[in-house]
Amino acid sequence: MPITPQVQAGLDAWNAATMGMAPLLRGEPGSWPAARAQYLGALTAHPTPPGVTIEEIDMGGIPGTLVTPDAAVDYRVLLYIHGGGYVAGSPAGYHGLGGRYANLLKAKVFMPDYRLAPEHPFPAVVDDSLSAYRWLLDLGVPPGSIAISGDSAGGAMVVSLMVAARNAGLPLPAAGVALSPWANLEHTGASMKTRDGIDPTVNPIGLDLMAKAFLAGARRNSPEASPVFADVRGLPPVLVMIGEREIMLSDAIRLATHLAENRVRVSLEIWPDMFHVWPLFAAVLPEGEQALRNAARFIEDAWGGVSAA
Amino acid sequence: MPITPQVQAGLDAWNAATMGMAPLLRGEPGSWPAARAQYLGALTAHPTPPGVTIEEIDMGGIPGTLVTPDAAVDYRVLLYIHGGGYVAGSPAGYHGLGGRYANLLKAKVFMPDYRLAPEHPFPAVVDDSLSAYRWLLDLGVPPGSIAISGDSAGGAMVVSLMVAARNAGLPLPAAGVALSPWANLEHTGASMKTRDGIDPTVNPIGLDLMAKAFLAGARRNSPEASPVFADVRGLPPVLVMIGEREIMLSDAIRLATHLAENRVRVSLEIWPDMFHVWPLFAAVLPEGEQALRNAARFIEDAWGGVSAA
Repeated sequence: MPITPQVQAGLDAWNAATMGMAPLLRGEPGSWPAARAQYLGALTAHPTPPGVTIEEIDMGGIPGTLVTPDAAVDYRVLLYIHGGGYVAGSPAGYHGLGGRYANLLKAKVFMPDYRLAPEHPFPAVVDDSLSAYRWLLDLGVPPGSIAISGDSAGGAMVVSLMVAARNAGLPLPAAGVALSPWANLEHTGASMKTRDGIDPTVNPIGLDLMAKAFLAGARRNSPEASPVFADVRGLPPVLVMIGEREIMLSDAIRLATHLAENRVRVSLEIWPDMFHVWPLFAAVLPEGEQALRNAARFIEDAWGGVSAA
Repeated sequence: MPITPQVQAGLDAWNAATMGMAPLLRGEPGSWPAARAQYLGALTAHPTPPGVTIEEIDMGGIPGTLVTPDAAVDYRVLLYIHGGGYVAGSPAGYHGLGGRYANLLKAKVFMPDYRLAPEHPFPAVVDDSLSAYRWLLDLGVPPGSIAISGDSAGGAMVVSLMVAARNAGLPLPAAGVALSPWANLEHTGASMKTRDGIDPTVNPIGLDLMAKAFLAGARRNSPEASPVFADVRGLPPVLVMIGEREIMLSDAIRLATHLAENRVRVSLEIWPDMFHVWPLFAAVLPEGEQALRNAARFIEDAWGGVSAA
């Protein structure tokens, strides 16, 4: 479907909020709290669906948000890593997406509020995500009933977190779903050029600024920052979803290919006309809800018979 | 799962049958009927599932096989283009796969027995497949309740047939599913080398022989023979499924990418350890049945509310 005026209004607000961070990313004076509050405002405009309860929790030292659906099935857990270029965003902006996921999966959705760059650069997000995952395991949640999802920066972290968990000797979750992953901070995919100007919200200049703020001197091809360079052997099934209008398209395809060539079970869905993290717009965009439904189906397949004990 | 002795026996028979065609493909003396009968024997070893009726039919001048499930829903139709390197195979070898598809989809499965190379080289298979599709439309089957699938050579034809139908001004089906497609007769994908010797049934030398017999002097990059070079704009959603052990892996990923970059809705599934057209082995290989179940789900999503009128 074409982008409706309602969707465009949401994109406009998101763009304005992202633009508000540009001076800060260039090192000019400004207020990170104000810029992040504007960014969050653009996200919280997406409504929370009915049928869920939201709580602020502590995930073993990492603050987080727990979304519990009325129809929760015991033990089913989704760990969700939010996006925002590693410099903005928080679970408070994901009550809508998290709530929809919770309802579709009949699962509790845990969203860690990881530390942000530039104050807390790479690998703070990996450390905090791993802490949150470890906390779930320590609670006694069976790893086979956990799935991990995330969008954009958090979509890359879906893979990075699983790699970190494997490297730490932890049991792995059942599946991962990367929505519009920012998979390669080198930004070498062809779509960085071919979709520049077609992508309605993300542009290479802005991405470069965020990558620099995040990496704080670390290499762009650091495997835990750019999962296209990671040793991904042994990971559980991963679904990658990407919009055809995204400058991240090629690098998302590369991530799927990289996973598959290393013998990870991969599904890749490419949606014409869709844009960066379009499932955020599920309340007003049918393709957003359809994508989440497919994501939930992928996770439920991986969970298999997981249900009330 | 590892390849069981039962699966290996099926692969051995298939390999022996394919090897039986090699001398003929090199222009040495031999009997095509005998070689094709052996090839068919390897395929007919896969059992027909219960709950289906098989009939030989005429599809407007093209002979064909119709598989009707006991639970058929009116109007639901799958047009299935079999594989066999364009030189062997026939619907008689696909009662198992066609029967499973029919049961999963609650759909009639029509399998045209298209003319084979080298007697009938490219584009005979495209012409015959298009004739069969046109015949379905002339019968009054709504295009939106038709899906197209096929494997290997037939997997490439899923796309080529839709391109030919679009070029002929015909309405398009709801969806396509390409199983282990032989998408690029140039054989330039990296996996032609990286999976050579890992792929348990297909090797580049054999593929080259079949491509030459099929093309009979036509270019390898002819768009209707190698859909990675086709103008695919306007096609309905396509699911590409490929095994990670296949030498066709890279070219299948390229096909999915090509479709997506041209704004076709694409799903790509890559299955670790799986081999060329593993759904043929569904009776003895769980991943085979799982893959067909995913394929059926993809088609049913595209059909939407299509049901008894």
